[in-house]
Amino acid sequence: MSLRDGHLSCACRQVLTEIREQPEALRALLAHDAEFGRVATTMRDRDARLVRLVGHGSSDNAASYGIYAFGLIPRWTAMRDSITLTVHYESGPDLSGSTVIGLSQSGRTPDVVEYVARARDSGAFTVALTNDPRSELAGVAEAVLPLEAGPEQAIAATKTYSNQVAALALLAAHAADAGELYADGLRKSADVLESHLPELEQLVAPLAIPFSFIGRMFVIGRGPEYATAREIALKLLETCRVAAEPLTATDLAHGPVAALDPLFPVWAIASDDATLSTVVEAAERIRGMGATLVASGSAASALGGADYALPLPEPPLPLLAPLLSVVPGQLFALGLARAKGLDPDEPRGLSKVTLAR
Amino acid sequence: MSLRDGHLSCACRQVLTEIREQPEALRALLAHDAEFGRVATTMRDRDARLVRLVGHGSSDNAASYGIYAFGLIPRWTAMRDSITLTVHYESGPDLSGSTVIGLSQSGRTPDVVEYVARARDSGAFTVALTNDPRSELAGVAEAVLPLEAGPEQAIAATKTYSNQVAALALLAAHAADAGELYADGLRKSADVLESHLPELEQLVAPLAIPFSFIGRMFVIGRGPEYATAREIALKLLETCRVAAEPLTATDLAHGPVAALDPLFPVWAIASDDATLSTVVEAAERIRGMGATLVASGSAASALGGADYALPLPEPPLPLLAPLLSVVPGQLFALGLARAKGLDPDEPRGLSKVTLAR
Repeated sequence: MSLRDGHLSCACRQVLTEIREQPEALRALLAHDAEFGRVATTMRDRDARLVRLVGHGSSDNAASYGIYAFGLIPRWTAMRDSITLTVHYESGPDLSGSTVIGLSQSGRTPDVVEYVARARDSGAFTVALTNDPRSELAGVAEAVLPLEAGPEQAIAATKTYSNQVAALALLAAHAADAGELYADGLRKSADVLESHLPELEQLVAPLAIPFSFIGRMFVIGRGPEYATAREIALKLLETCRVAAEPLTATDLAHGPVAALDPLFPVWAIASDDATLSTVVEAAERIRGMGATLVASGSAASALGGADYALPLPEPPLPLLAPLLSVVPGQLFALGLARAKGLDPDEPRGLSKVTLAR
Repeated sequence: MSLRDGHLSCACRQVLTEIREQPEALRALLAHDAEFGRVATTMRDRDARLVRLVGHGSSDNAASYGIYAFGLIPRWTAMRDSITLTVHYESGPDLSGSTVIGLSQSGRTPDVVEYVARARDSGAFTVALTNDPRSELAGVAEAVLPLEAGPEQAIAATKTYSNQVAALALLAAHAADAGELYADGLRKSADVLESHLPELEQLVAPLAIPFSFIGRMFVIGRGPEYATAREIALKLLETCRVAAEPLTATDLAHGPVAALDPLFPVWAIASDDATLSTVVEAAERIRGMGATLVASGSAASALGGADYALPLPEPPLPLLAPLLSVVPGQLFALGLARAKGLDPDEPRGLSKVTLAR
């Protein structure tokens, strides 16, 4: 059974189409490179170098990546800020001297809109990163960066997530006068992904059946790949109804490892990166507990004894690895949803725009 | 079957003893009140008002609480900082102007020790919060705050977690000249917990059997109670081998809610707090998916239609609610481990001091 064979039922065409549109979406984002440069200039001019990222779901997962993009390129501190402190309490912390980036595909997430509005009132430089530049979120922020991923019909985010990751990399790069390097890296990432996608679809497809009775999983990554671990776990939760929990490679050892067994498998993301040794050590622990191990990423082969290996090509720049490493997880979630008889395009209980407070 | 009936097997005496020692541990911490005052004074004198909290496992869960303690009492920004950026990369962010608080029960967590040492070199004010004031972590930090929880024998943290929460509240309070108010609140919390514990043990005990075949759960809370959700989920993972995932009440709606069904129950923490409406809204979603709902906390009765309610008394100060609301979760994890035939004192694959890198 292959995802490429054209025998897909109607039910999961949207999400597969959108997974395949990721290279094109990345290129569309790059057409707005100059806008990213201007926003980065304002961040520096206003000395707003503490970056507060706010979003829910996949947007919050992309924010996890932003911590590394800003921490490693301009060496600024970025954080996933508490929305609650600012929105639900009268007296949250002072946000002046900060750049606030509100992430929302729809631009309609109520508490993100409210957080950004309040942050702007308190003197923060506010930026909306959204797929809808005419949305409420765009309206309340001082600057708008378009995600430019094109319409996303499937409820589970795919191309909007990868464009959020790319957008944060590009903005962080401009903040360090490395915009050109990263724009070029993103362009090459789109090419690498496009040429590798057919092979990846073939590689991932056989995993669906052996995992079809799995009810729980851990997904581990560290550093920039922790964002990937979070995003893959969310895909598994929302489209496959698997209780998938993301963990850093090191947090796994601090308790959760005790839960593992052969029916509680682990998906490990191993990229060629300064944190690889922590993932290798975690993989040893996982095998020691008898858990099934899926190794993915450009350094998948470094995780000896994995039950399934999904190697990926090297990214054009190390920090752009998450754009490639999320894709096997997206494809796996799609295949697993099909194997379980679920509709990955429209999971039960969800709608495309989440208006929860 | 009651946890109080004296018929406990040897296997789970330690953790129950340590749960019961929490009021005494809180009082022991308060004997060091003056030291907390001195550290807070240094934080202000050095204008080190960006608070970076680092730890793994239960220590990291307590750090989630610290974000609210600092955000709501002195209105400072606190964050769970990336350990990886500073420890694994040559060029992490600049940490000067920050207070760094390293949290580790043993004081031996390798990457926390290394983070604190590097942060001190880069000009941060470094504080060790540890149960062992002669540990490596204490040695590398400029200031040491003792947890003073007494020896913790069970592998799963209980009283060291609650003392970490109390310590962060006390430090944040001193930073805002509210040390006396919070020291008094903590003393009263110890009294409330002590007098309520026998009733709570009776209330929680009957839940173990109906949940004994559960393999997965969500634990939700928002604001200061997100820390509690994380800590309860970790207890369930490490002692009961339940795939328990902590979520904020709002994040639940952004995808994970789709996974729920009657065998995928949710534990919701509802305290009388500005965020209560988000938990009430989440509870409606949970019931809409047909999932079993356990409501705990001082506002448990606000979650209409819960299958099980575990009401708690009002805390002496709203921000101290997490000291009470974690306890039903600790007791539930203990009872559930027993019902599953597991040893909650020594989970498979764990040791008391985690030396993972």
